Order: sequence, then structure tokens, then C-alpha cells
Amino acid sequence: MPSNPDWVKALNESGRPGSKCLELERDKSNVDVDKLATFLFTNEILQRNARILDILKADPVFDKTQNYFRGRIERIEASLARGKRLRQLTVEHNWTKEEYNAANELISEPTPYGLHASMFLITLREQGTPEQHELFLKKAEAYEYVGCYAQTELGHGSNVRGLETTATWNPDDKTFILHSPHLTSSKWWIGSLGKVANHAVVMAQLIIDGKNYGPHPFVAQIRDMKTHEPLENIHVGDIGPKFGYNTMDNGFLLFNQVKIPHANMLARFSRVDPETNKYMRPSNPSLVYGTLTWVRSNIVLQSGSVLARGVTIAIRYCSVRRQFTDRDAPEDEVRENQVINYTMVQQRLFPLLAACFALHFTGRGMIELYNTNQAMMQQKEKAGKQNAGKVSEDAGQTPRGAGPEELNPGADLLADLHSTSCALKAHASTTAGEGLEVCRRACGGHGYSSFAGLASWYADYLPTLTWEGDNYMLTQQVSRYLLKTARAVNKNFKNTGNFNAVNGDNDTTAILKTYKRRQDIGAAFDVLGNDEDLVAAYAWRVAYLTFQALQHRDEEKQSWNSLLVDFYRLSTAHAQYMVVKNFQGALSSSALQSQLPTPTKTMLHTLFRLHALHTLEKESSEFFQSAACTIRQIQLARTKTVPQLMGEIRPHAVRLVDSWKFPDWQLDSSLGRYDGDVYGDMFKRASEDNPLNNVVFDPNPNSKTLFKRDDRGNLRSKL
Amino acid sequence: MPSNPDWVKALNESGRPGSKCLELERDKSNVDVDKLATFLFTNEILQRNARILDILKADPVFDKTQNYFRGRIERIEASLARGKRLRQLTVEHNWTKEEYNAANELISEPTPYGLHASMFLITLREQGTPEQHELFLKKAEAYEYVGCYAQTELGHGSNVRGLETTATWNPDDKTFILHSPHLTSSKWWIGSLGKVANHAVVMAQLIIDGKNYGPHPFVAQIRDMKTHEPLENIHVGDIGPKFGYNTMDNGFLLFNQVKIPHANMLARFSRVDPETNKYMRPSNPSLVYGTLTWVRSNIVLQSGSVLARGVTIAIRYCSVRRQFTDRDAPEDEVRENQVINYTMVQQRLFPLLAACFALHFTGRGMIELYNTNQAMMQQKEKAGKQNAGKVSEDAGQTPRGAGPEELNPGADLLADLHSTSCALKAHASTTAGEGLEVCRRACGGHGYSSFAGLASWYADYLPTLTWEGDNYMLTQQVSRYLLKTARAVNKNFKNTGNFNAVNGDNDTTAILKTYKRRQDIGAAFDVLGNDEDLVAAYAWRVAYLTFQALQHRDEEKQSWNSLLVDFYRLSTAHAQYMVVKNFQGALSSSALQSQLPTPTKTMLHTLFRLHALHTLEKESSEFFQSAACTIRQIQLARTKTVPQLMGEIRPHAVRLVDSWKFPDWQLDSSLGRYDGDVYGDMFKRASEDNPLNNVVFDPNPNSKTLFKRDDRGNLRSKL
Repeated sequence: MPSNPDWVKALNESGRPGSKCLELERDKSNVDVDKLATFLFTNEILQRNARILDILKADPVFDKTQNYFRGRIERIEASLARGKRLRQLTVEHNWTKEEYNAANELISEPTPYGLHASMFLITLREQGTPEQHELFLKKAEAYEYVGCYAQTELGHGSNVRGLETTATWNPDDKTFILHSPHLTSSKWWIGSLGKVANHAVVMAQLIIDGKNYGPHPFVAQIRDMKTHEPLENIHVGDIGPKFGYNTMDNGFLLFNQVKIPHANMLARFSRVDPETNKYMRPSNPSLVYGTLTWVRSNIVLQSGSVLARGVTIAIRYCSVRRQFTDRDAPEDEVRENQVINYTMVQQRLFPLLAACFALHFTGRGMIELYNTNQAMMQQKEKAGKQNAGKVSEDAGQTPRGAGPEELNPGADLLADLHSTSCALKAHASTTAGEGLEVCRRACGGHGYSSFAGLASWYADYLPTLTWEGDNYMLTQQVSRYLLKTARAVNKNFKNTGNFNAVNGDNDTTAILKTYKRRQDIGAAFDVLGNDEDLVAAYAWRVAYLTFQALQHRDEEKQSWNSLLVDFYRLSTAHAQYMVVKNFQGALSSSALQSQLPTPTKTMLHTLFRLHALHTLEKESSEFFQSAACTIRQIQLARTKTVPQLMGEIRPHAVRLVDSWKFPDWQLDSSLGRYDGDVYGDMFKRASEDNPLNNVVFDPNPNSKTLFKRDDRGNLRSKL
Repeated sequence: MPSNPDWVKALNESGRPGSKCLELERDKSNVDVDKLATFLFTNEILQRNARILDILKADPVFDKTQNYFRGRIERIEASLARGKRLRQLTVEHNWTKEEYNAANELISEPTPYGLHASMFLITLREQGTPEQHELFLKKAEAYEYVGCYAQTELGHGSNVRGLETTATWNPDDKTFILHSPHLTSSKWWIGSLGKVANHAVVMAQLIIDGKNYGPHPFVAQIRDMKTHEPLENIHVGDIGPKFGYNTMDNGFLLFNQVKIPHANMLARFSRVDPETNKYMRPSNPSLVYGTLTWVRSNIVLQSGSVLARGVTIAIRYCSVRRQFTDRDAPEDEVRENQVINYTMVQQRLFPLLAACFALHFTGRGMIELYNTNQAMMQQKEKAGKQNAGKVSEDAGQTPRGAGPEELNPGADLLADLHSTSCALKAHASTTAGEGLEVCRRACGGHGYSSFAGLASWYADYLPTLTWEGDNYMLTQQVSRYLLKTARAVNKNFKNTGNFNAVNGDNDTTAILKTYKRRQDIGAAFDVLGNDEDLVAAYAWRVAYLTFQALQHRDEEKQSWNSLLVDFYRLSTAHAQYMVVKNFQGALSSSALQSQLPTPTKTMLHTLFRLHALHTLEKESSEFFQSAACTIRQIQLARTKTVPQLMGEIRPHAVRLVDSWKFPDWQLDSSLGRYDGDVYGDMFKRASEDNPLNNVVFDPNPNSKTLFKRDDRGNLRSKL
């Protein structure tokens, strides 16, 4: 569109401008934004991000101006160009994996190289032998082989064992034959496969002499290295548009009896002996399973900042936006009220603000636990691989396969960690995903505009609720672990006659024992007055629900299927307990105590209480039924404490979101601008940036002409 | 993409094909699909829809094959073509407004003529004088004038009084001057304005001699009738892409001191006398306010079928899809379980299935009530316009303006109807909108594909939660009415000393009196055993919450703002009560009793109980606190009755969604196909229909080339 006429350019916002609103908000609060940001992320990372941001902003290929306007093909074309440049910059600046990831986060949309850089390289590295690293990994690291990880099929998602693609060992010429026997065996949803990959790691059922040895990983070339056209007897393409994630080429892939050499079966953990044609399991894959826990822990950590993006946008905009005068305001009040002053808006946004911090600290706690555990495991491994035999029947599982929760884990702590990571992954990503939509709606009508920056972020995030373990499916694995632990606690009681926690008990065992020990005395948790009691009430509820589920399953012999809804509730309760526990732990940590000034600490404590009490009130029936607290306490939380905490947070809301330090370039949101120039930005994008305003309609329904004028230039991306 | 290779074409689904799955489902149930459909919609309407469907399907302009692939400009170009043809067909077949609407529903996406055909024509008709009908309406009905209804501004949504655009009366030349004093006064979100309209009804503050008379409607020409370019001193365009609704040209509009003639102020209810320069209110607009109630009642009615689309898709796909074997299945069970057999899936989908029927019957009840009321009002009007004076200070309100709930309504029944329509609009559209997202997620990974037909439908529906009264804002109006009624009940008690309902009491007054009368005796509702008691428990809860809110407001003098969260809960409770009451009413109606065979009636009754008990269990704390039922009853509902009802519904789920009679063409969903050919359809769309598969990437990050091959043809729409 030609630039706006001069009389439009001369117009201002009515009333107090948005920039002034945010300035006043920031003046009102004594939260130390920089110190809080440093505590959340460290100075090194904040500086690193700033450095990378400068590089990206200076490069026209990363210009975001047309992002919201492009159609699918144009978007993926732009994103291909960005993926290429990102690779070039990585080489040029010698970026680490963390720096590359930081750049990706700032760009905030997946590129078609995404799965190559993550799953393809990881799988080759972790599941390939040194010879296979030489053969495949080197070229993949040089982006000569561009690949993907092909597991899910059109007819099979979570259930890896049900995959249909076969890899049949052919002893005559020492090859495997990859084959897709049905339409439903088509690989589906595979990121980076649709258009960009020339190789794939393919999960296929290994068949030797008619016997099925379960899913194993194979490397297959799928496109010609010169023309990039599919090889013969391979059918591959993009699976079409999606709710979000449209800059990624999720693909399909079918094989028609395609031969691959013996060397292409990734052989670190299992292989076929080409001489004897026997299946071999040379190694214990338990360390690999840790990958899934690590991936899930990262999802938990990220969920905090994923949600914080939405909360930042919503809280800034609701501080700028005014609507109606307060019903109890004096008669002569002419100015409309800031939307953030309405308790109904606070009730929607402030618990989410608190959740951002809660999830962030929980993710951090998970990753620390994971690292401790890995170090311990590695020591154990060195000390003799005691548990090697126990898991071998499931060898060949991959980082995306079923986790150890389906196996018989050797280490008690590992099992606890895995279960926690499942419960938290499900709960954290659901909280973040659904929270983003709450933020969008809290922005009123303008939340619906793409320029709000919320809808696309929400839609792009949603797959996280499904991948790395579907959020509903995972709750079964958590419950299975909790039931098993409860059985062990009961059995231990039979043997020892007491429920006292002993040194070495993991957290789950400890809370179950505490409950059992106190079951007949009852609990008297001062949930409104004491933080430790508040956490203990959450633990009590988990234990209550666990033993209740155990009774349904073991004594009343109810079917597994009939208990799925209970299991979902149980897993959620466990996750919520872990979150309040981690939040409380972070508050009492010496790092926090030493690094943050008192008003900032106080505010974090207020957020902790809001998070814990608002959740308690929301789930009140379980807290009440388990007698973790009384109905009176719940009523007081609802009517007194929670509203009071909201009021305490109100003046600090803008500074609290500022401390997440999202650059405007990353948010790409009119409503969430740091400077509050919401309306000016919105208007510029709608009028001057909007290519639809370069065409003129013919509105006469009887005319064959659709566009009377079409001045769209060539908007295609280039490198 | 060229067609799939022969070896791909030869592939089948593994296991039992989807078509067979749905066939077996239909065989298992004795629900009479055709009779139920007839009862829901009538035969005339089903036949009319089939007739219109044939016309649309035969016309290439309505071909949907490329819908999900197109970018914004291509989509709106296609939708412009469809809008034109729709108008041509309307003329050709002499379609009524209802037939035109039915065609729009089958097409299932808005066209740029949408707001012309609705709000522009309605406003001219209802607010114009006969002379103005001659001047504007005739040309508008002939689509010579294409228009829109411009109320919302960039800085002002729900609060109509805060609009900034001015229309200043100029006595010298008898004109009005339209002006946008600030950037925030830009009209915004106006459907059909961005690209297609050449005229607009503009809501602007009427200024006479420096005095503001509030918002009034003015007709303004905005684009040249020949070139369709904006007129001088008018800045107009499309506001850019949105979460959904992208086939509509929502627009912005600014005026720079633009003169319009005296005749352009719509003058049926108020006008400026050109001789005396005085403001005149010639008539009582109370009948017009009914329009809003009517619009909201229709939103309630539609919410049932909006949700039913999602439920149809999800239930059919979950009946085809198999995943994992049942954990308690015999060892030799190899076939995976239908997803719909999992209780966690039933828990998500069956309450929504029940809600579809509940909302449909409630909408129908609302519209009947509205019609009765309109007839009564018209009689009253004739009988002397008794209430004319009372509302006159707010004259000039429009169908989109504040409703009578902000005024001082004359008729008690009208106020009750309005309040109910507000509560139900908010509750029904929130239920449908959020329910659609639940349906999408219940479809697992494939729910994320555009071909599921869920994401776009959800995104297009979401504005309904905001327009015609924001769903959060509306709850304040409902609560205000309930508080007022409660005050009247208390006052009446002071005068008469009893709480007995009298003839002529509206429903709200009656339930409040019942509660007061029994307050000290308590309630003993047999919610699990008796339908009337179940409805009465809902009424009891509403009354309890109302008097509690009244105490907070009137006795404890709590601020209005501090009660907004309570008001939201109160309004929701009132809506839920109306829904169960209407559902129960429909079940006991003679129409249902005579038209449906027993097994179908039984199933509707099961759905009613599931709806009412599932909601009761979800909102348990309020039911318990109000003593509408005991904790034991709630526990029994959760653990026994609801699971049992789910089991009873399970075999009939597919037939129950079949009875909504959505043609495949309307659903446009791979997952929701009537014949169950989910995977074949998904594959065809992804491979053969997908234009991204007509380009070949260059995956080398160091190459400047993005596409090695680009065989996209011209996909532009034409008429």
C-alpha cells in the first residue's frame, strides 16, 4: 500500500498514549528487572542473546515484516532461505549448539532444517557405531546429507510397536529391504522430510528369517543428490498445511521394496551379524533412554518462557488498553479504566504470570536432577553395568520410542526421574498451551489479529502437547509408576512394620510413607499461613489419590481402562505438587536469597503463594476430599487470600513481565511492544505493510472481474 | 503434484478398513438417525439443504479442493468470487434469506459480502425512514451500494459510548461533518469494509452546537462508484490477517472532515430538524433492542450445531482409529483398540456430544420465548406505547449498541429474556468454542492437520465469543439483573411477608422465591434419581449464588470490581440452569414423545443425564456449598453414574452424530468422512492436491537457489 496520507500521519492516540501508560506502570514498581532477569537466565546468556539478536536483525533474510501475510508456500520458501543463512552464520561465527538454538528462538519459527539439526544428527550420533559416524554423521554434520527421523506413520502415532514399515534381512546379498506394506504404513508428520531431506533415519520392524525383532533404525537415502528428486520406488512429499508449524515441511514417505546395504542399520545397540544372520544385542541402551527424560525436562523449562511470551503481550496491552469507567468510580471520572485493573482480567492473567516462574524453576530443578542422575549412572556404568541384562529384551528402542517406564528400570532414582519428567511434561505443556489462548482472549478483539503475535505462537506450540509422549498417554505411565511405588511401600510395611522414610528413599516413596504414617492421625496443614505446609498439602493429596487408585485397581480389581480418568487426575496432582515444591525450593535457595533485593524477593514469594493457592482453590474438591485442608480454608483462599495477592501483584505486573527480557523483534507483536505504541504499530502493519491493500476489488456481483487493480509486487523471498 | 505411482495406488489400509469400522458401529445401534434428524431440524429444512447443496456442488466456483492450501490474498479472491456467485444464484433461484443463509453454512466460510447482506441491510431497514429506504435501501438490496456497519474503533470495542468518531451538524449548509480526531478513532474490525464496500453505516457521536448527543448512525459513501478507489479525505483498507475469518475483509476507516447531506443520518428513531437545528426523538426504539436478543438467541441455537461439527469429526475418527491394545485384553489380542473405547477419550467427547443436543434445544427454547415475547410486545405497543418515555434518554442505540440491560426496561419479561439471552450467549459460545478445541485434540496428531477440518472451523468461530457482547462483559449484565430481581423479591417479602410465587412471576423471580421459602428447611434433591430434582438443584445453586452476591454487594458494600469473578460464576450457573431446564423440557415435550421411537428417546434421556450430572460434577464445589446436594451424591455421580452413562452411550455415538446430517462437502474433513475412508482421503489431499509438492527444494545451505524446480500452475480463482 502506498504510505498513509499526511493527515493520517498527523493523528495521535486519544487520551494518555500507550507509551506513557507503560512508563507510569514501570515507575510504580520497585521490582528490580535486571537483577531478576540475571537470576532467571544468567548474564552470560542475556549478553549472548543480545549479540545474536544484532546479527539476525542486520540480515534482510530474517526481516519479519511479511511473516504474517504470507501463504504456506511463501512462508516455507522464506523459512528455507532463513534455514540456509542460519547454517551459514553458524559456520561463520562458529556458533555452539546453544547459540544456534538461541538464534532459532529469536527467529521463533521452525525452519525445514530443524529436524536435521536435532533428531537426525542425534540419532546418528547416539545410535551409530564409529564406522557409521564416518559413513553418515560426518556428511550430515557438513549438511551434505540433510536428514530427518522417520518414525510416526499415517496409522500409528504413540504406539511404536505397532509400526508397519518393514526392514527384511536378505542373507543372499547382505542387504535390508525397506517396504511399506499398506497405505497406513506411510511415514507421516516427519519434520524436514517433506521437501528438504535427502536422507532419513527410518524406524522399521526388523524381520530376519520371518521373525519380527521389533522396530529398529535404518539410514536410507531418499532423494537424488543432484536433482533432489525422489529415488525410484520411493514416494515422498509434504503432508500439507497444518494449524501451525507451517514453515516446516512435515512429510510422508513410502518404500516399495527398496534395498539398503547392511551398513545402514544403526548398530550401536543391536545389529544383524552378516555372517551368521543372527540378531545381536551388544550393548545396554539405558543411557540413551535418558535422552527422553532430558528432552522432556527441557520442554518443562521452556514451557515457562513459552507462556511468558503470551503473558508479556497480554499484560502490556491490558495496561495500555482502556475500556469503560469503573462502576464505583466518582461521577466526574471521564477517563476509562485500564483493563488490567479489572479483577476478572487479573484472575485470568496473574495466575499465568505466576505459572511462568513456577514452570521455569521447575524445569531448572528437573535439569539439575537429570544431571546429577546422569553422573551417578555413568559411575554405575563404569562400575560394572550391573543392570545390563534387565532391559535387553527391549533393546533397539530409540530416543522417541517408549521410555523406560515401560521397561523394568534398574535404578529406582531413574524411574522416579522418568515418571516426574512424564508428569511434568504433560502438565507444563498443557498449562503453557492453554494459557496462551487465555492470554489471547484477555486481549479482547485485537487478540484475534495476527499482529497480536499470539495466535501463531499458540498454534506453533500446540504440537508440544502431542509429541515426546502425548499428554494424555503420559499420565498412564506416571500412574503406573505411582501404583508400583505404593505397592512397594505397602510391602515394605509388611516386612518392617513401619512407614518411616529411610535414607535413599526417593521423593515419591517418602511422601507415600508420610501419608501412610499419618493416615490415622490426619493432617492439619496451615496452607494459608505456612509455605512448607502448603507444599505438604499438595504431597498429601498425591498420596491420597495414589492409594485410592491402588485400591480401585488391586482390591476392587477395576479395569485399567475404567481408571484412565482417575489416572489423569493423579498424574496432574503429582505434577502440581512437583511444581509448588520446586517453586518453594527456588525461593529458599541461597542463590535467590543472595542475588535479589528484598522487594523483588517479596514479589516472587507473592507469586508463589498465588500460584499454590489459586491451584488449590481450582482443584478444591480433591484437596477437601483428601482432607489436606478444610472447606473453610478453601473458602478463605478464594474469597480473601487470592484476591489480596492479586492486588499486591497488580502494581508490579509490567515489571515482572519485563524481567523475561523478550526483545520486540522476537515477540513480533503490536500489542506486546515494550514502548506501548500499540495502536501506531497496529495501524502501520494493517495499512502500509499489508499486501492486500495493493489490490482493488470489483464489488459488482454481476461483473466477471475480481480485482480492478492489482499492484502486488514480487514478494518472493531470496537469499 | 503428478498423480501417485501405481504401486502407491495399489496400497490398502492395514487391518479393518475405516469404512468397515463405521459400518459396524452403525449396525450396533438402534438410534433412528432419520427420525432424530427430522425432529431436530424438520423435513422441510433437510430437503431444502439437500437441494441447495446440489446447486453448490455443481458449480466449480465453490470447489473446496484448494481451500486449505491458499494464502490470504488467494483465499479472499476465491471468496469474493463465491460471494458474487452466491448473489447471482440468489437472484436466479429467488432464494429467501433463510435459503441464502443455508447456502452460506454449507460453504462454511464468510464471504466479503457477509456484512452487507446482514448488518448493512438490517440497519438501513430498521433505522431508516421510508424516504431513506428509497434513497439507500433499494440500491443496497440490488447490490449497487455494497455496505458495512462501522461501529468498533481501534481504541474502542465493547464500550459504544466511548466512540471517538464525530458527526458535527453544520447548520449553514445543512450537512454533517464526519471526522476521526485521533488514530484510535479509526473504525476497525469492520467486516466487508476492507475491500468490498462502497458505502458504510458509520456510528459517530452526534454534535450539535458543541453538545454531544451520543452515538448515532450515518450513511457515508466511501469509495468511488466507478473506480472503487477511496474518496478524497477517506482512508480505508483491510486490517490484515487474523487467527481465522481470513476470507473476510475486516477493514479500517478514517475520515478527514468529510461532509455528508442531512438525509444521511438514519432518522427513524432520532434526527436533527434542519430548520430549528434541534435534536428530535420521534419514536420508541424498544422493539429494535429485541434484535440483539434475537441475534444472541440464534448464537445459542447455532452453538449446538457448531459444536456438533467438531464432535461428528472426532467421534467418527476415534471410531476408525486404533491405538494400543487394551491393557487388560487377553494376551493373544493382536488388534489394537478403537480409540473411542478408551474412557479418557469418552470423558472428553461424550459430554460434548450431550452438550450439542442441550444447546440446540436451549436455542430453540430461547427463540420460542423470543417470539412469544415479541408478539406480546407488539400488542402492548399497539395498546398505547406505555413505556415510551422511560427509555428515551438512550434513544439512538443500535442493534449493536448497549442492550436494554443498561437501560431501565419497561417489561419485566423482556428484561428476563434479555438477561437469559446474555447468560446463554456467553455460556453457549464459550462451550462450543472450547469444545471444538477439545475435539481437535481428541483426534491426536492428525487433529493438527488442516485436513482434519477442525482448526479452521475453530478459528473462524472464535470471534463469536467476543462479538454481540464479549462473553466476560455479558456476565456483569446478567448479574446486575439477578441482583435487581433478588432485591425485588426481598422487598416484596417486606410488603407481603411471604415468598410464594405468584402468577406472572418470571422464572428468575420464581426460583429466587422458592429458595428463600425453603432456605431454612433445606433441600433434599434426588439428583441421581429424578430429573425434576436435578433441574431444581441447578435452580437452587443459582439462587444461592445470587443472594450471596447480593450480600457482598449490598450488605458488605464490596466494590463492583471486586465481585467480577463471582459475577462470572453466577452468570455461568444461571446459563447452566437454563440449559438443563430446556433440555429436560424438550424431553418431556409432546412433540418429542410422539415423533421418536423409544430407543432414540431413551438415548436422548441418557444424554440429558450425562450432560446434567457431568456438569454438576465439574462444578461440584458450588453444588456442595449451596447444599443443593451432598458430597456423597457428587462422589456417586463421578464414580458410578457418569461412567455408566458413558458406557450406555458408547454403542450409539456414531449414529448420534450421524443424526446431525452434515454432508461431507460441508465438513470438508478427512477425519470426519461419513464413509470412514480417513487415510485414503488424507493421503490424496497431502499428495495429489498439495501444491507444495509441485516445487523441488535445493537443500544445500550454501546454494543461493531455493527451488530447483517450480511447477506450480496458475491457481488463481475465477468466476
